[in-house]
Amino acid sequence: MLELLSDHGCFGGVQGFYKHDSREIGLPMRFSVFVPPQAKEGPVPVLFYLAGLTCTEETFMIKGGAQRVAAELGVMLVAPDTSPRGAGIPGESDSWDFGVGAGFYLDATQEPWSKHYRMGSYVAQELLQLVLAEFPADVARVGIFGHSMGGHGALTLALRHRNVFRSVSAFAPIAAPSQCPWGEKAFGNYLGSDRAAWLQYDASALMQQLQTPFPQGILIDQGLGDKFLEQQLLPQAFEAACAQAKQPLTLRRHEGYDHGYYFISTFMEDHLRFHHRILSA
Amino acid sequence: MLELLSDHGCFGGVQGFYKHDSREIGLPMRFSVFVPPQAKEGPVPVLFYLAGLTCTEETFMIKGGAQRVAAELGVMLVAPDTSPRGAGIPGESDSWDFGVGAGFYLDATQEPWSKHYRMGSYVAQELLQLVLAEFPADVARVGIFGHSMGGHGALTLALRHRNVFRSVSAFAPIAAPSQCPWGEKAFGNYLGSDRAAWLQYDASALMQQLQTPFPQGILIDQGLGDKFLEQQLLPQAFEAACAQAKQPLTLRRHEGYDHGYYFISTFMEDHLRFHHRILSA
Repeated sequence: MLELLSDHGCFGGVQGFYKHDSREIGLPMRFSVFVPPQAKEGPVPVLFYLAGLTCTEETFMIKGGAQRVAAELGVMLVAPDTSPRGAGIPGESDSWDFGVGAGFYLDATQEPWSKHYRMGSYVAQELLQLVLAEFPADVARVGIFGHSMGGHGALTLALRHRNVFRSVSAFAPIAAPSQCPWGEKAFGNYLGSDRAAWLQYDASALMQQLQTPFPQGILIDQGLGDKFLEQQLLPQAFEAACAQAKQPLTLRRHEGYDHGYYFISTFMEDHLRFHHRILSA
Repeated sequence: MLELLSDHGCFGGVQGFYKHDSREIGLPMRFSVFVPPQAKEGPVPVLFYLAGLTCTEETFMIKGGAQRVAAELGVMLVAPDTSPRGAGIPGESDSWDFGVGAGFYLDATQEPWSKHYRMGSYVAQELLQLVLAEFPADVARVGIFGHSMGGHGALTLALRHRNVFRSVSAFAPIAAPSQCPWGEKAFGNYLGSDRAAWLQYDASALMQQLQTPFPQGILIDQGLGDKFLEQQLLPQAFEAACAQAKQPLTLRRHEGYDHGYYFISTFMEDHLRFHHRILSA
């Protein structure tokens, strides 16, 4: 059952916040939806946004500045939370980069995480189906994007569910998590010590196995003043994998921009128009 | 001395956060500035934004969605905090609508508030002069706007410092604070029980004494789904005072919008263009 927590008029559409009992997570989960005014007339394209470490289902809707263009283009926006909340696993809130607020959009296989930390199936299956059932969203026009950990999530979910997501982009994604400290910590705990099992959640590794390219390309924006760029994000690994897989990629590197939402909001309009162009084709 | 706390590339300009020792407040104060790209070529118009109850110098910059249009138009944005912090007055943090986060943009005359709670002189004199001295802002092109308590602040400071502020607008302002519970609580404590002393900080009362109208009008946006509209905001009192004073006013009432930043961000662009038009004339 879907519970409306609040709704707010916004650019002629409605910004809503919701709660439901998630089957995949086994706990209540929150998410947000921006419904553009065009949805009154019929199903519209829908774009999932996955946020980064420490964020919630509110972050993107508050800080992203996306609703204006989404209302203009007639695109629905959906943002899930970044992890289960209230699983009660000892230590789950001890780190800002693991556990609560850091679900990494995967299905954990290791105890004690495997019971609740199933953000991969939650987003790509349960939440997607819920949104398609409860909102005027068009199943044939679904895209995904995200930031940092959520950029990793967007790239990997798009590659793992190639038939679901027609467009994908990212802001400063963790592009090769198997090779960076954030990814090693998260994957080691959620997926175990066998590094081969990590590759199914590594965008650069998945890209090397790509069967069906995204014909209209993938868009990534990266700030060159981003303090996480060199050690954690590694966009060059994804760039090399795309080149090898003949996947068109537009990777834009921006002088003077950092890792935060002042960077993200600057390029938000470009991402929305990128997705809209593909989803409208 | 001005301390830079952080800066962030944003829409080709720079979003900065600052701290300084305030003479008026007698404590360190924080504020934020968005410097548009045009400021590299010379002084630009500057627009002060005053936020509402519980907000800080960050709120507008995070939630307002103003930087995009400010960068396009070449307008500098400045947002102060909403009260002194750390005055150490017993009970100052007990209420969300009085004391910390609720300075009401006035100079308190009553003990124990009168020493530090001087947000009126702080904004209209000290911070204004600091910004004009330290940033490429044009003294002849200064406007002010704000939300709720900050809408009250913008209207009253513009009316009290008619020679400083050339343009003024507001989102859901507390338009007649002498007549509403928020204002009665704040003014009673900051200014004392003599209600005659309140009128110098009441936009509707000040409007009745207006000498020099704002020839290009005042813009106010108000959501009709705003739960504070009837008891606290009273825009009709300000509307009547403007009519009496022959001050042109555009008061737009919007069905389906509430008191929050999803409302504010929807109409932000209109306000920026309104100010820019006046300040460019």
